[in-house]
Amino acid sequence: MFEIKAKDNMGRVGVLKTKHGNVKTPALMPVIHPRKQAIDVAKYGADIVITNAYLIYKDDDLKKEAVEKGLHELIHFDGPIMTDSGSFQLSVYGDVEITNKEVIEFQELINTDIGTSLDIPTAPFVEREKAESDLEITLERAREAVEYKKDQNMEMLLNSVVQGSTFLDLRRECARELSKLDADLYPIGAVVPLMESYHYKDLVDVVMNSMKELPDSTARHLMGAGHPMIFALCVAMGCDLFDSAAYILYAEDDRLLSTRGTYKLENLQEMPCSCEVCCKYTPDELRAMPKEQRRDLIAQHNLHVSFAELRLIRQAIYEGSLMELVEERCRAHPALLEAVRQLGNYSQVLEKYDPRSKKSAFFYTGPESLCRSEVLRHMQKLREMPKKRDLIILPPTRKPYSKFISGKLGEFYIYGAEQEIDLDNTDFMVLDIPFGLIPLEIDEVYPLSQNDAPKTRDVDSIEFVEDFISEFVEYYEQVLIHSRVIKDLQIGLYNKCISSDEIRYQKDDIKKVKAIADYQFGVGAGEALFKGNINIEKSKKTGKIRHIYDGKVLLVNMRASDSFLVLSKEGAKRLHNAMPYPQNRVVVNKDSEPFALDGKSVFCKFVVDCDDDIRSNDEVLIVNEEDKLLAYGKALLGACEIKEFQTGQAIKTRKGMKK
Amino acid sequence: MFEIKAKDNMGRVGVLKTKHGNVKTPALMPVIHPRKQAIDVAKYGADIVITNAYLIYKDDDLKKEAVEKGLHELIHFDGPIMTDSGSFQLSVYGDVEITNKEVIEFQELINTDIGTSLDIPTAPFVEREKAESDLEITLERAREAVEYKKDQNMEMLLNSVVQGSTFLDLRRECARELSKLDADLYPIGAVVPLMESYHYKDLVDVVMNSMKELPDSTARHLMGAGHPMIFALCVAMGCDLFDSAAYILYAEDDRLLSTRGTYKLENLQEMPCSCEVCCKYTPDELRAMPKEQRRDLIAQHNLHVSFAELRLIRQAIYEGSLMELVEERCRAHPALLEAVRQLGNYSQVLEKYDPRSKKSAFFYTGPESLCRSEVLRHMQKLREMPKKRDLIILPPTRKPYSKFISGKLGEFYIYGAEQEIDLDNTDFMVLDIPFGLIPLEIDEVYPLSQNDAPKTRDVDSIEFVEDFISEFVEYYEQVLIHSRVIKDLQIGLYNKCISSDEIRYQKDDIKKVKAIADYQFGVGAGEALFKGNINIEKSKKTGKIRHIYDGKVLLVNMRASDSFLVLSKEGAKRLHNAMPYPQNRVVVNKDSEPFALDGKSVFCKFVVDCDDDIRSNDEVLIVNEEDKLLAYGKALLGACEIKEFQTGQAIKTRKGMKK
Repeated sequence: MFEIKAKDNMGRVGVLKTKHGNVKTPALMPVIHPRKQAIDVAKYGADIVITNAYLIYKDDDLKKEAVEKGLHELIHFDGPIMTDSGSFQLSVYGDVEITNKEVIEFQELINTDIGTSLDIPTAPFVEREKAESDLEITLERAREAVEYKKDQNMEMLLNSVVQGSTFLDLRRECARELSKLDADLYPIGAVVPLMESYHYKDLVDVVMNSMKELPDSTARHLMGAGHPMIFALCVAMGCDLFDSAAYILYAEDDRLLSTRGTYKLENLQEMPCSCEVCCKYTPDELRAMPKEQRRDLIAQHNLHVSFAELRLIRQAIYEGSLMELVEERCRAHPALLEAVRQLGNYSQVLEKYDPRSKKSAFFYTGPESLCRSEVLRHMQKLREMPKKRDLIILPPTRKPYSKFISGKLGEFYIYGAEQEIDLDNTDFMVLDIPFGLIPLEIDEVYPLSQNDAPKTRDVDSIEFVEDFISEFVEYYEQVLIHSRVIKDLQIGLYNKCISSDEIRYQKDDIKKVKAIADYQFGVGAGEALFKGNINIEKSKKTGKIRHIYDGKVLLVNMRASDSFLVLSKEGAKRLHNAMPYPQNRVVVNKDSEPFALDGKSVFCKFVVDCDDDIRSNDEVLIVNEEDKLLAYGKALLGACEIKEFQTGQAIKTRKGMKK
Repeated sequence: MFEIKAKDNMGRVGVLKTKHGNVKTPALMPVIHPRKQAIDVAKYGADIVITNAYLIYKDDDLKKEAVEKGLHELIHFDGPIMTDSGSFQLSVYGDVEITNKEVIEFQELINTDIGTSLDIPTAPFVEREKAESDLEITLERAREAVEYKKDQNMEMLLNSVVQGSTFLDLRRECARELSKLDADLYPIGAVVPLMESYHYKDLVDVVMNSMKELPDSTARHLMGAGHPMIFALCVAMGCDLFDSAAYILYAEDDRLLSTRGTYKLENLQEMPCSCEVCCKYTPDELRAMPKEQRRDLIAQHNLHVSFAELRLIRQAIYEGSLMELVEERCRAHPALLEAVRQLGNYSQVLEKYDPRSKKSAFFYTGPESLCRSEVLRHMQKLREMPKKRDLIILPPTRKPYSKFISGKLGEFYIYGAEQEIDLDNTDFMVLDIPFGLIPLEIDEVYPLSQNDAPKTRDVDSIEFVEDFISEFVEYYEQVLIHSRVIKDLQIGLYNKCISSDEIRYQKDDIKKVKAIADYQFGVGAGEALFKGNINIEKSKKTGKIRHIYDGKVLLVNMRASDSFLVLSKEGAKRLHNAMPYPQNRVVVNKDSEPFALDGKSVFCKFVVDCDDDIRSNDEVLIVNEEDKLLAYGKALLGACEIKEFQTGQAIKTRKGMKK
């Protein structure tokens, strides 16, 4: 029903399958008014639309036509159609003339692709009691709807809407309860008032708390979200579907949507985008037009910018630059900037979904970037790695640092117990903002070289790194801090200055590949992989390590783009022998064993278990339930997704052990 | 020749007049290849183009055709055409087969609208000696060209290009020397290598140092700048013209321009914008096309996004949201973010050009916003204002603060000499991030209420305000700091806590309007304006002050949008009597006296002198050289521009004193 094609943070490019065709997500569903639709939305990029089953039901003519000819002919759209149930009317008028079962039945009858049960949309900031009692009804009706669909063997997909107002525990509870049902999609409801009042920070809380408990394997629809200004943020939180009545409602009101906010036509002296409407007309010309013509043109503009933004978001997911886009878009309004800052509090959640390596570089765009998965993850890895006795902290040079550090290193200050330097028992790291410290051996691994930040620093980033280093130096007996580092930062206490001729960084390829293996696969992986007669082959053109052999037996390749190690058959065997279960493992069931051995890719539904630390783009071992190595390959999803999905590929197998 | 229509920071919407028509600036001039032009750039929004006179001169066929039919027919463009002189070829090949005089003569002969002398484009980061000797030739040729044009009575406008490599003093010297000539336009040259290597920080230095010394009354062309990613930043620094060979060069190379950077077609899975090319084709379809067709479509896209960005920039200038746009755009690359941070070092320069009041609110987008004119200006005003004995600092509420502060104010900490509180001798201010402190009387004045910032603060903004307050409290004997303020900030030392029932803020409309007058017109203006039987009329709908009378004589109106005072005839008289010359004055010459008295608007060329503190949108007094009050009105330009411009309006007169 729903498959992930590409990922970045919690954002996904996916495919939602319906009986009227597949939809590429994130997708926008323009709202179609069953009676007075003026715009052919398909022409402007819509693959799926949404309309209101209750409005059709209540209108005798529409109802008759819908029942006789079907919904698709009624609204002249032959792609997938989602219908809403009247919940919105319920929330506005307090009552509707239809029951939950009736509306489910009606939606199936008129051949809707995705129907919705009659949930209770509870407004934000209501009394808790009200939210709780509403929620009870919502859950009850969701259960009833799912059962009824099953009983009646209905074809349509079913929405079960997450409610709970702005009570985050209620949102979580609702999502948790709903996820136990076998619903097909999980919209998040009643957030429109939050968006209308610029409570984007609360929107982040509501969405993230819902998302935490919702299955990853279904599409999530942020109901009523139709302003392109917030699409990127919401996609990064895991929203796959949006609906837009905004395109026409704003147009009615002479307002133009933009990723930068909303423009009132009366205030425009220039047309704000590159769409054909903006290229063809001036604001004066639009103002001089008859109302209907103007409305239709503005609606076209609104659709153009909305669909363009979704294309751009999908492109950003493919590239791995979604957070850069989010952090750019949030400058449209301080309330959006605040929302992104709030999202930083959920970085532990986002990290679980974020690919280990991306096509595009990490760009620091401001203090908000300090909360990104990449930073969090690297610092966590540093904390976990085994430490030498002493630490030397060097100032940053050009990247990759190890390439530009050589010769005498200059003056140092000493922190900790002063003792003779033993270079074999010393970690060499470079001060880096925002990544804290970067061990010289692993400095080419993504994103430690593949990142950029302004050299003029903000205080947040400096303090962030100072805090990390102040904590980190405590792992060591003696720390030598380069004088240029001391000049930049205020870190802890230090005494005496030494000018030490004897401190030189000695490059050592074997140490380097071992360090990368430890960083990538876990402590001990380096020693296990690289024993024997180690032979390192480098690219003649770039001088970078490409292949590592034991004698003539290939162990790993080093990928040029991100310096991660790609296992060979022998490498996989050694890693499997050395690292205890479940590290780096994906466990498949008995049935799929022969396929894995043959090198066929692993589908989610055959996965029994996996290492919780697996992230998409990780190199992994594929084993059976007795931990026998069957194959090895690249994870396409993160551990939490692999465990949960029942459709789609989990691992792109590189090779089966049979071959 | 050049007139300003709207301003924001150093950015201007202007009109450049040429013999082939007017050009709205900021404008982009697509580069037209005289022989192999494939795209009809006018169709995609170009009002002016640029081509290379030297290339035409060197090609016998082209030269013949150009001389016979004129340049416009040669390149099939009937709008204004700028021509370059071969300087680029000189910089690449080291030599050209034409002299300075010859190229000037040739450009006039083929009827170019804007010609260029044969300057020496000195690359960035060269030896100083080289930069100096090149500069000498550049200046010599510029002088020669200007004289030759005058001698020969040429019609075309003339470019004199600012050079000087990355030596900022040489850039300033060159600009200063050139500005003494009577050239028509002043391009800034040889910055392409800076842009190609992402040295945007150096670009800021080069441009700002050139701008400082260039006349404001001419259009400035940033030569070779054709990437829409940097347009907003460069416009904010005062650039009016850009030229783009990029649109076609990038297209040749399958690269798509965007305000977010450059997309390689090979990496695209989705089309990134709302233009008709992006709406009509998929990346796959483009990739499958014959090279030429693809190139033309990508070039169209490139032109669409470039012209759309310029429209958006002009719209931002009209609204007064240019810096918000710049701060958003700079997230496209860390080097651009660094450039904006560097621009912060020139905030004193930008402030001189920045309008006092704007249509749109001030949005805080990150630490970079702390350097904006509005913040600088307010803090400067606070430092200059007369202080009461004591200061009370209150925590922020909703805005406008004075509306939401009432009743008991809570607990305070004391800083300074403890003494009995005298509410009449106390300033009440609210802690505000990023504006520091906001006196309650003036809190409705733009932008003190018309701004928004995220409530989750970055450390830069907190420290910035802490520093300001730590300095500011020293003006007072005793400072009472509210406990909620103490919780938020670490400011200086304080002792004892008091819970003081007696501290209440007493609203007082008379105090308020006097404080606004002092803030707006200078200390003493309030007392001078509002004496007699003061009558304050408020809006029935909003409760805001609208009109202030002495008895029945109107003194001022308070503008609803920004709470600035708009003078009446009596108000102007009182202000004129009370405030010493040159405060708030614009002095016009004898000839224009009768027109001013009659209430006609004041043109720049009649202005003899003015108060250096005048900024556009200020209410000003118009006087003659004996300081006789002639009229009063609203400044359309800042003091530095008013003094220098010879064309266009300086003051929109509200009323002449004759009437």
